[in-house]
Amino acid sequence: MTTEQLRARQQALRAEYEAFCARGLHLDLSRGKPGPDLLCLADGMLDCVSEKTGYLTEGGVDTRNYGVLDGIPEAKRLFADILGVDPDNVLVGGNSSLNLMYDYIATAYAKGVCGHEPWSRQGAVKFLCPVPGYDRHFAITEFFGIEMISVPMTAAGPDMDAVEQAVRDPLVKGMWCIPMYSNPTGITFSDDTVRRLAAMTPAAPDFRIMWDNAYCMHHLYDDRQDHLLNLYREAQACGHEDNLIEFTSTSKISFPGAGIAAVAASPNNLADIKKRLRVETIGYDKINMLRHARYFGDIEGVREQMRRRAQVLRPKFDLVLNTLEEKLGGLEIAAWTKVVGGYFVSVDLLPGCAKKVAALMKDAGIVITGAGATFPYGVDPNDANLRLAPSYPPIEELAVSMELFCLCAELAAVEQRLTEVA
Amino acid sequence: MTTEQLRARQQALRAEYEAFCARGLHLDLSRGKPGPDLLCLADGMLDCVSEKTGYLTEGGVDTRNYGVLDGIPEAKRLFADILGVDPDNVLVGGNSSLNLMYDYIATAYAKGVCGHEPWSRQGAVKFLCPVPGYDRHFAITEFFGIEMISVPMTAAGPDMDAVEQAVRDPLVKGMWCIPMYSNPTGITFSDDTVRRLAAMTPAAPDFRIMWDNAYCMHHLYDDRQDHLLNLYREAQACGHEDNLIEFTSTSKISFPGAGIAAVAASPNNLADIKKRLRVETIGYDKINMLRHARYFGDIEGVREQMRRRAQVLRPKFDLVLNTLEEKLGGLEIAAWTKVVGGYFVSVDLLPGCAKKVAALMKDAGIVITGAGATFPYGVDPNDANLRLAPSYPPIEELAVSMELFCLCAELAAVEQRLTEVA
Repeated sequence: MTTEQLRARQQALRAEYEAFCARGLHLDLSRGKPGPDLLCLADGMLDCVSEKTGYLTEGGVDTRNYGVLDGIPEAKRLFADILGVDPDNVLVGGNSSLNLMYDYIATAYAKGVCGHEPWSRQGAVKFLCPVPGYDRHFAITEFFGIEMISVPMTAAGPDMDAVEQAVRDPLVKGMWCIPMYSNPTGITFSDDTVRRLAAMTPAAPDFRIMWDNAYCMHHLYDDRQDHLLNLYREAQACGHEDNLIEFTSTSKISFPGAGIAAVAASPNNLADIKKRLRVETIGYDKINMLRHARYFGDIEGVREQMRRRAQVLRPKFDLVLNTLEEKLGGLEIAAWTKVVGGYFVSVDLLPGCAKKVAALMKDAGIVITGAGATFPYGVDPNDANLRLAPSYPPIEELAVSMELFCLCAELAAVEQRLTEVA
Repeated sequence: MTTEQLRARQQALRAEYEAFCARGLHLDLSRGKPGPDLLCLADGMLDCVSEKTGYLTEGGVDTRNYGVLDGIPEAKRLFADILGVDPDNVLVGGNSSLNLMYDYIATAYAKGVCGHEPWSRQGAVKFLCPVPGYDRHFAITEFFGIEMISVPMTAAGPDMDAVEQAVRDPLVKGMWCIPMYSNPTGITFSDDTVRRLAAMTPAAPDFRIMWDNAYCMHHLYDDRQDHLLNLYREAQACGHEDNLIEFTSTSKISFPGAGIAAVAASPNNLADIKKRLRVETIGYDKINMLRHARYFGDIEGVREQMRRRAQVLRPKFDLVLNTLEEKLGGLEIAAWTKVVGGYFVSVDLLPGCAKKVAALMKDAGIVITGAGATFPYGVDPNDANLRLAPSYPPIEELAVSMELFCLCAELAAVEQRLTEVA
């Protein structure tokens, strides 16, 4: 495009943008939050435990009372099937897997991992952070002053050459991973990536992969699904099962605010976690575990639930992906993954455009996840990545938001080009 | 008693004891766990939030979704009324106040209190532990290697001369308190004790009273009730409201495994706690908060619930206290408080007798809280204190247990006397 063509395009886009602003929108695409159309899909669960149905586990334990530190057997079995491990490797927690991850890092920092020196006494310890990634992961490591080292995400997962190089440093103590339908890029780690993660021998004996398998059940399509290799089994085959801690939850299966979460880990790691847990609590909410176990029955019940959820989410993701393709496809100003699962679409704009697009949208009344949020310390060195969360808004609002997003993305690109040629 | 009389009494008691052993009992009085007769009293709560009743808070927030870090307003109000503070001072957590206490100490240790240096970097920090006290409190401070200093409990609360002396040491960072119907002694801190705690100015600016007000609603009688002065208000009057963090829960009001817990604290302390909480979780289970708020309605609903629970507990406590009086009264071998609330009866035997009595009971098939458990590091220097928890067993089993307990207490005393005269 010539400078004149760019100016003309800028003027046209600015006019469209002003028209949007005049509409007085108030929309929110910022968080991966289910909408009311998803929340209602598990309502039946709330009647699963009552006077009528009784409060006893299959083993006859009264879920109303104290006790059972690591979760009721039927809930452990459900998570074991979800994660592809044995029930003995599972510990069921409260409503938040983030809380379980926080507790793990907090304990590693203050007390150490499996008898090793606390991270807090080992100097400037570090953590590997595939980017773009999940801001709440980064917030935990930042809270404890753990230095975060960005590792680029590829279409196959984190750049494994960089990871294998980094773990030679004994101060590198762990790595955040969302291996399936990753937040935000939506990609799934390839078999080769999982095998390399399983096989690597970090210099630090207290190195732990934080394997946040939040979206392992979250397929959008019946015919197009990613497949994730089982890291625990692969690691076990190498004798490396102590190198990872796996997490998941039903937050986006049942209720975000009132689901159940779980840890899966090796016997050594579980014993280490329980040492702390015994001091931390008398036990998590077993009534809520029983609700989940009874409502889903088994993994097939979870799959059925996820198919119902996909029916609600699919049109939203189709809309996002189709609008991106229609408006920005071929312009060479944006790249994104054609995701088939998870909760997000991540868009890489031209370097230097992310903050501007987020600001333009905000000024027009639509909040998206802040630029930089997907990077450690909230700083995207290229200022290029933005995360879209299509799950919450009704589809009409999503359509408006995506139109505006594409408009802003093009406007930012055009104006940047104009600055460059000026 | 002469040696012959002692020997004769020993023989008679041993014969009775052997008869007990022959009965093959398997009873458990070890934990302050409600029995099935108490658990069923809140069953109606489980139907309070369902498709029929809706999921919205009074402010229209959907409790099924993410968000609302410090708890829904109606639950905050309920706890504010229970604790006698403003709702703004309350943060509602998950099912475990122990977990909230653990998190507080863990964060103080690793990150510091309100911007002060982390306790872990201040050298050999210490905590005051009124004894006998609650083993799970002591387990938290022990887990973080915080040195525990015992302070004797009196009928009016912890020995305040000792406390005021101890807090002159800037390494003394806090103090465990169960101020009402204390675990295990059952006493309530006197007004004078509360005022002295409120007025004291510890040398450490990051000293915190851990005010575990677990039993503030747990009266046994309508006509005989202890009254606890409001520490937060007293401290506020001295400008010392930052010196304490208050905790409570509905574990023994609704369900031990599925209640809700709360922190009450000054604005400074709450802001400090929320800094961590924002990193730790997206929010606690709001559906369960809504269940509690709807079921109880207001503090009067809680009082009504506690009267129903007292009807179940009263005969059990009456039995324990009457049996102690009948069998051991006047023998000058045991002392206990005639409690009017809470969950425990604490018995001080002759020095050197506690372990023996617990062992005798265990051998006869009845488990009580381990001797020493009520002291830091599990060591009762006098080996004298035992905690009885009457809430769980049916009354017939409790009667058997108490008969055996009194028998063992007398047997241990007689045999100790015989050793002394030998």
